[in-house]
Amino acid sequence: MARGSIVFRVEDVPESNATAYPEPYRALNQNRYARRLGEFAGLKNFGVNLVRIVPGGQSSCRHAHAAQDEMVLVMEGEITLETDAGREKLQPGTWVGFPKGTGDAHRFINETDRDVVFLVVGDKASDKVTYPDVDLYGEHGADGVFRYTRKDGTAY
Amino acid sequence: MARGSIVFRVEDVPESNATAYPEPYRALNQNRYARRLGEFAGLKNFGVNLVRIVPGGQSSCRHAHAAQDEMVLVMEGEITLETDAGREKLQPGTWVGFPKGTGDAHRFINETDRDVVFLVVGDKASDKVTYPDVDLYGEHGADGVFRYTRKDGTAY
Repeated sequence: MARGSIVFRVEDVPESNATAYPEPYRALNQNRYARRLGEFAGLKNFGVNLVRIVPGGQSSCRHAHAAQDEMVLVMEGEITLETDAGREKLQPGTWVGFPKGTGDAHRFINETDRDVVFLVVGDKASDKVTYPDVDLYGEHGADGVFRYTRKDGTAY
Repeated sequence: MARGSIVFRVEDVPESNATAYPEPYRALNQNRYARRLGEFAGLKNFGVNLVRIVPGGQSSCRHAHAAQDEMVLVMEGEITLETDAGREKLQPGTWVGFPKGTGDAHRFINETDRDVVFLVVGDKASDKVTYPDVDLYGEHGADGVFRYTRKDGTAY
């Protein structure tokens, strides 16, 4: 029988600033480093990532999920949440839930001079993702693969 | 437009030791108190719970999920993980992933003299849950409702 529990610490999981964003948006998204904890543990149904943003960086471009829920815990440093309502500074211990389908787009940014760290959980429902601030749109195809296009549907 | 982000702290979420277990197993499961953070934030696709176990208590009876993944972060105190492989003491900052379908059953117990706290994430896939140590079996019906029976399928 396979061992059913994967016991680990954050330091066991490699950090990466890889991004699937197309140009010209890749550089915007390479000032954040993720440890894919759920993937490390062999989980398939949802993702659990620990994300570190360096000063001046962002978690992602501001986006809204049509079908996926998202949950965040601020772990280290003061993190700025940006939504349609504006910017709000969050301290460690603050939780933020983003229910799917509200249309309100969000991102996290680091406006301080030291690294900030948050935990994010998201599921893997077939999704459509909208980006109000950049010419980007993402969705899962019939083959289950998530792909980016321009807002008019043309390929990058 | 609905506000898309629910910002909160753990203290905003009520704690409850409610359990869906049938008798004679209910008392076993009432020494742990959960705050349903995901539900508080209006999330539907997965659960995020903060669980406190008082001394001598358990998180649940030892169980294995056929279809749901599960991920845990030890947050406060020394927590004992019990699986088919035996018992292991975990310190704060330890993560444990439980990929679905391994058949290896687990629970967390508090063998110390102070409260322990952990965070648990789990999805909501239609599931079958087996319990090696008690006469309990749970599954989602065709109506999507999760129900407990005895191992022989008879109702409690």
